[in-house]
Amino acid sequence: MMKADFLVNKKNTKGLLFIILFRVSQFFTKNLILKIIGLPIRVFYKFFVEWVLGIEIPDTTCVGEGFKVLHGQGLVVNNNALIGKYVTLRHNTTIGNSKSGGKSPVIGDNVVVGANTVIIGEINIGENSIVGAGSVVIKDVPPNSIVVGNPARVVKKNN
Amino acid sequence: MMKADFLVNKKNTKGLLFIILFRVSQFFTKNLILKIIGLPIRVFYKFFVEWVLGIEIPDTTCVGEGFKVLHGQGLVVNNNALIGKYVTLRHNTTIGNSKSGGKSPVIGDNVVVGANTVIIGEINIGENSIVGAGSVVIKDVPPNSIVVGNPARVVKKNN
Amino acid sequence: MMKADFLVNKKNTKGLLFIILFRVSQFFTKNLILKIIGLPIRVFYKFFVEWVLGIEIPDTTCVGEGFKVLHGQGLVVNNNALIGKYVTLRHNTTIGNSKSGGKSPVIGDNVVVGANTVIIGEINIGENSIVGAGSVVIKDVPPNSIVVGNPARVVKKNN
Repeated sequence: MMKADFLVNKKNTKGLLFIILFRVSQFFTKNLILKIIGLPIRVFYKFFVEWVLGIEIPDTTCVGEGFKVLHGQGLVVNNNALIGKYVTLRHNTTIGNSKSGGKSPVIGDNVVVGANTVIIGEINIGENSIVGAGSVVIKDVPPNSIVVGNPARVVKKNN
Repeated sequence: MMKADFLVNKKNTKGLLFIILFRVSQFFTKNLILKIIGLPIRVFYKFFVEWVLGIEIPDTTCVGEGFKVLHGQGLVVNNNALIGKYVTLRHNTTIGNSKSGGKSPVIGDNVVVGANTVIIGEINIGENSIVGAGSVVIKDVPPNSIVVGNPARVVKKNN
Repeated sequence: MMKADFLVNKKNTKGLLFIILFRVSQFFTKNLILKIIGLPIRVFYKFFVEWVLGIEIPDTTCVGEGFKVLHGQGLVVNNNALIGKYVTLRHNTTIGNSKSGGKSPVIGDNVVVGANTVIIGEINIGENSIVGAGSVVIKDVPPNSIVVGNPARVVKKNN
């Protein structure tokens, strides 16, 4: 019973399951042999994670260790985006290009991104920065900053 | 045939199903005995409502009577938020803390919240107020007001 | 194997499946006989597309040819909205009325709408215009324009 209660009460069950499935599916993208063996797993990832859960981060996306996703529904990340280490993303968020075929953002280490945000274009989000909920980020964000608003501007910078 | 057509045409079928499942699941959180008996229902609620439908309102959240959810996908409510009576929420909306472990909003009676909104922090949304679609609310909203924008500001106040 | 790999790598598999299901379900709304025959298909559309995928565009919505949906989770379109030809919509987007029972937008031909946008009220989005990601559009947009921001304003107009 304790175990089952854990299933219900644990706040980030979905996020933990996502990370496991993402990393396993990502493992099977490393070379052709793995791609052949892992095809059922990659199809399951695409269907269950991207379609049912609505967390659309392709398993070919380059994501550093310590990656954390909270809630996650409506999260769409372009597979050309680069995600650093210990980054936290939430739900209803878009990280991608600002025009078809354009480049995608580079998210630095330890960046925390709030819910309902848009981060688009060939931009850098500096390490340790925080992107406030509801922000629309279309320009570079310096390291150690907090940005908010539409378009997002720096409201606090820690040196 | 009429009954089945009703399934297709009725605009808020999903919202009605959500409310029924939420209230039933909530009932089984009242004490330990109910939690044991109701575990399968609570697990079903978590999986079907929070994961498949993408409506993430924990069954332990305090929500007044007359609660209404429209569409609902991408709706995430912190279980410490307090939702008054006859509140309407929509989709792509976040109601939660502004920092990890921080306090969550109190939503007054008869408040109507538009789609794609963010309401975060230790704030009060006064009764009978309307939060316009796309708003990011980070400060108290007086009763009987209409707020819009990012950050949200009062555009109309009825005395 | 190539075929299966296609399932995983093809970027817009979900969007293509959506369009097929939408058009098939829409076909079965044309008259009473078709509605009776097509009921299982329409119920499947509602459950799979609107509930599981989170793409809520009723099959009775008037949508021109060449319609394209990218990602699509959290996309909610009112069935009274009019969508022109070759329109592209993305995810976390709301197109609807600004008050209950109010009129919905008319989206012109070749309009491209970014992610996380809100387009509400009795407004026209002129043909060939682009609505930037994260915009909240509550006024008419002239043809051949680019609009961004909350509330959205014209940032570029091509004559």
